[in-house]
Formats: sequence, structure tokens, C-alpha cells
Amino acid sequence: MRAMRTDGMRAKPAGKVDMYTAAVITVSDKGSAGEREDLAGPLVREMLESEGYEVARAVIVPDEQAVIELELMKCADELDIALVVTTGGTGFSPRDVTPEATIAVCTRMAPGIPEAMRAESMKITNRAALTRQQAGIRRETLIVNLPGSPKAARENLGAVLPALDHGLEMLRGAKRDCAADEQSKP
Amino acid sequence: MRAMRTDGMRAKPAGKVDMYTAAVITVSDKGSAGEREDLAGPLVREMLESEGYEVARAVIVPDEQAVIELELMKCADELDIALVVTTGGTGFSPRDVTPEATIAVCTRMAPGIPEAMRAESMKITNRAALTRQQAGIRRETLIVNLPGSPKAARENLGAVLPALDHGLEMLRGAKRDCAADEQSKP
Amino acid sequence: MRAMRTDGMRAKPAGKVDMYTAAVITVSDKGSAGEREDLAGPLVREMLESEGYEVARAVIVPDEQAVIELELMKCADELDIALVVTTGGTGFSPRDVTPEATIAVCTRMAPGIPEAMRAESMKITNRAALTRQQAGIRRETLIVNLPGSPKAARENLGAVLPALDHGLEMLRGAKRDCAADEQSKP
Repeated sequence: MRAMRTDGMRAKPAGKVDMYTAAVITVSDKGSAGEREDLAGPLVREMLESEGYEVARAVIVPDEQAVIELELMKCADELDIALVVTTGGTGFSPRDVTPEATIAVCTRMAPGIPEAMRAESMKITNRAALTRQQAGIRRETLIVNLPGSPKAARENLGAVLPALDHGLEMLRGAKRDCAADEQSKP
Repeated sequence: MRAMRTDGMRAKPAGKVDMYTAAVITVSDKGSAGEREDLAGPLVREMLESEGYEVARAVIVPDEQAVIELELMKCADELDIALVVTTGGTGFSPRDVTPEATIAVCTRMAPGIPEAMRAESMKITNRAALTRQQAGIRRETLIVNLPGSPKAARENLGAVLPALDHGLEMLRGAKRDCAADEQSKP
Repeated sequence: MRAMRTDGMRAKPAGKVDMYTAAVITVSDKGSAGEREDLAGPLVREMLESEGYEVARAVIVPDEQAVIELELMKCADELDIALVVTTGGTGFSPRDVTPEATIAVCTRMAPGIPEAMRAESMKITNRAALTRQQAGIRRETLIVNLPGSPKAARENLGAVLPALDHGLEMLRGAKRDCAADEQSKP
């Protein structure tokens, strides 16, 4: 049985050494109003849980920049969640402002994450060039935007998910010295 | 015969369902002073027209950030042009400030567009890493920077042009619900 | 024999037409405190010298944003060094702030450089998505961040080093007209 942790620190159940808390934030006016079923959010949750994350929060918010920012700050500052994944609001529609909310609350951006996601998606469709998602760090929380379509969200998250754990180790003060560790690698 | 529209909305001539207005802005001190023939601008115009855009404006401006910003704002705020493509001013020369002017006037950046352009150009030359072009949104106008050399401008625009139409549909309130549409795709 | 220049201008020793000054800044708390040998710095220096750069400065600074910014400004404003390469401080650790210092002192960013480095590194490890390095221009100085591990620093610099010379020619006012030159290419 996995111990539920809400402070973002790693719990260490038997046979599971890496576990961080995560939040899934679906950004959608229609989803928020109950006018559309949220398909991407549960899919992202499932992917995170399969990778060993403890999804401590899953919410749907409208495409309002101030509301998205407040939710991101709550996850980072109050709940100390390690990984916050948003889905939706990354396109060109006038209401798509998830990247702008993310930039506003992060103190350090991680441009390699959206680059890797878009590069992977570009192999499938040239429309991937239109996604505007960002990733960045606020306090000890990594925030990663995904597109809103379930298919694109799955592709995008899949492209970077295996690497995120290492980022969280660096961010959350893993005991081992990462740079020294890297130097001893082949 | 195609109906000329200047409000950025799609005209719908027979057999041509997608048409947006476009502007081509050549950024070049020498071109602006009449000391060099503008080759990139007409080439970009031709590419846009072949794709079905109505080029409603084509101008040459000097490499002055304030002048470029004013021109971009005129296209977006006054002429309501759907797609503004600039060529030139994206390199390392001290006078190359087109990306800075673009960042200054856009409220939402679209980093996937220059990423896709550079990734495509990198297949041809490693000097593509030196191009600093940006893309972003101001009101209902998408602004895309291209390098100044005709060859690089053609390569770069060709890498993203087929996808831009979909971005403009999202931006300008196409009737169909894009997210729902995406979800129903295979 | 190579003439040492400290004003960032090209010296022209026999058989060596391209030479710019460079600085190597190792960003590391432990390296700065003498608690760890700096392996990446000397490796970067060697790569730069092999490419024909005159390494006029090599220092180790702690992971303090203000200290990094001062060092970058000294290299650009006082020493007029053409190419400043940093190594370290580009990860997710709370003390990793080299990209933020770089953004703070640069007036024009060059996003294609870190994109090209990460795209190359992604072929080797998906952890490359976690590197946050930036590149940008301050006055006539190009600043390029590299990761701190010697292996990653070598891979990253190798991906862009052959192109940087052309960027510095544009930046430092090479006599030839780059755009015209490009146009005459096949």
C-alpha cells in the first residue's frame, strides 16, 4: 500500500524508491462549466500514476489567467506539490493563456521541456508548431503545460515524463551530488 | 475572382474556403534606403499568395526597433491583418532587432514556430542556430519573423506555412470547436 | 606565434584568419570554494583554443546570480571579450541560476543556440530536456551557457561551436556584407 504524502517529499513504499506528489490541472472553460467531459485530465493522471507519482490534486479551472495563476501558486506554495501538470489553454484561441499564467508564476523557466515535447509532436503533425506550452519552476515545484487534446497531451507528456523524475531529484535536494555523479558516468 | 478584404476576415471565393489577409514587412536599412533590391519580400509574398493568403500590405522599413514596432502595431491594431510576416533583422548584427520589436508588441509568444523553422534549417546548415527569429500574437494577428536571406526565408516559411492556417482559425474564432474536433480524431 | 589580444578584436597570426577572444566561466559553489576540481572549465578552454579562440580569461565563480552577472558584465563591458562560455548552474537545483543571470545581462537573446545544443543532446539522453541553458548578446559579446558536467558541456559546445564564428563576425562588424553574401550563395 502506498503512503499518501501531501508535502511533496518522496514517500518510499516497498519496491518503489521514487515517488513524488503531482497535481493535474485541466484548463478549460467548458470543462469547468460542466459542459464537456474532461478526457485529458484523467488520462494525464493515469500516466503519472503509472510512472509512480502520487496524484494529490486534480482540478478543472476556466481559461482565466488569474485563476490559473492562483491554482498554480496554491499547488506550489501551499500544497508543496512536486510536479504540476496542466492540460489545455496552450493554443492560439483568444482565451488560451495557460502559458502566460505559467510564465507569470515561475521564477526559472525550463525551455528544454516544451522544446522536447514539440520536437516529438512535430514527427506526427506540423500543427505541433502551434502549441505554445511552457515549463518552469516555482519554489520546489515543476510546472509543465500540455495541450488540451487527449491525444496531444499523451504524446507530449510521454516525450518527457521519463526524465522529469531526475529533474525533481535536483530540485528537491536529493542527497546525492548530481554533478559529481554525472562526471563519473561513461 | 478573389474579393479583396482588408479586415483580416476570411473571404470565401469559389473553390477557396481558407483565405486570410497577410502583410509582408521587409526589415532592412539598405532596402529601406533604396540601396538594395528587396528579394526576400517578393519571394515571401509569392509563397503566401500560393497558399491562398491575400497580401494586403508590403512595406520596407529600416532596422529601427521603434519603426518596426509601429509597423507591426499598424498591421495588427489598425489594419487587422491576420498574418504578418517579417523578413530580415534576425541575426547578430548590432542593428538586428526585429525579434526584440516582435517580443515588445506581442502579448502571447508562439515559440513552437521559430523552433520548427530552426530545426528544419539545421538540417541544411548549422548556422541556423544563429537565427534569432520569434513568433507571437498581438490581438488577432499572428506575427512571424523570417531571416533576411531569400534562401533562408523560403526554407523557414516553408517549414511552418502549411500549419499557420489552423492557428489563424483558432485565433480568429473559427466556428468549429477545435478541441472537440481534435478529440474526435483518430 | 599567436599575438594575445584583450580587446576582443581578431588577431591575424600567419595562417589563422579567424581569431576572437573568449572567456570561460565555471559556475560552481564547490569549485569556487576549492572543494572540487574544475574539469569542465579546462575542457571547454581546450575546445575553444582548438577552434582558434584566444582564451583571455578563465575563472570559477559560485552559484550566486549577482556574482555571475557581475562577471558576465566585466567580460562584456570592461574586457570586451567576443565569446563568453559559462559551464554549470543550468539544472534544476535551487542554486542553479546561470540562465537567469544570463537573461538579466543580455539585451538580445539567441534562442537557436540552446535549442541546437539540446536537440543534439536529446539524441544521447532524454535528460537533455532538463537543461535550462540560454545564449544571448550583450554589447558585442556573445554569452553561451553550457551544462556543468564535462561530458554534457563537450557535447553541447560541439553542437554549435563551428557556427559561432560566423555569429561573431556579424556581431563585431566584419567588413563583408553578410546578407549580400548570403544572397549570392547557391
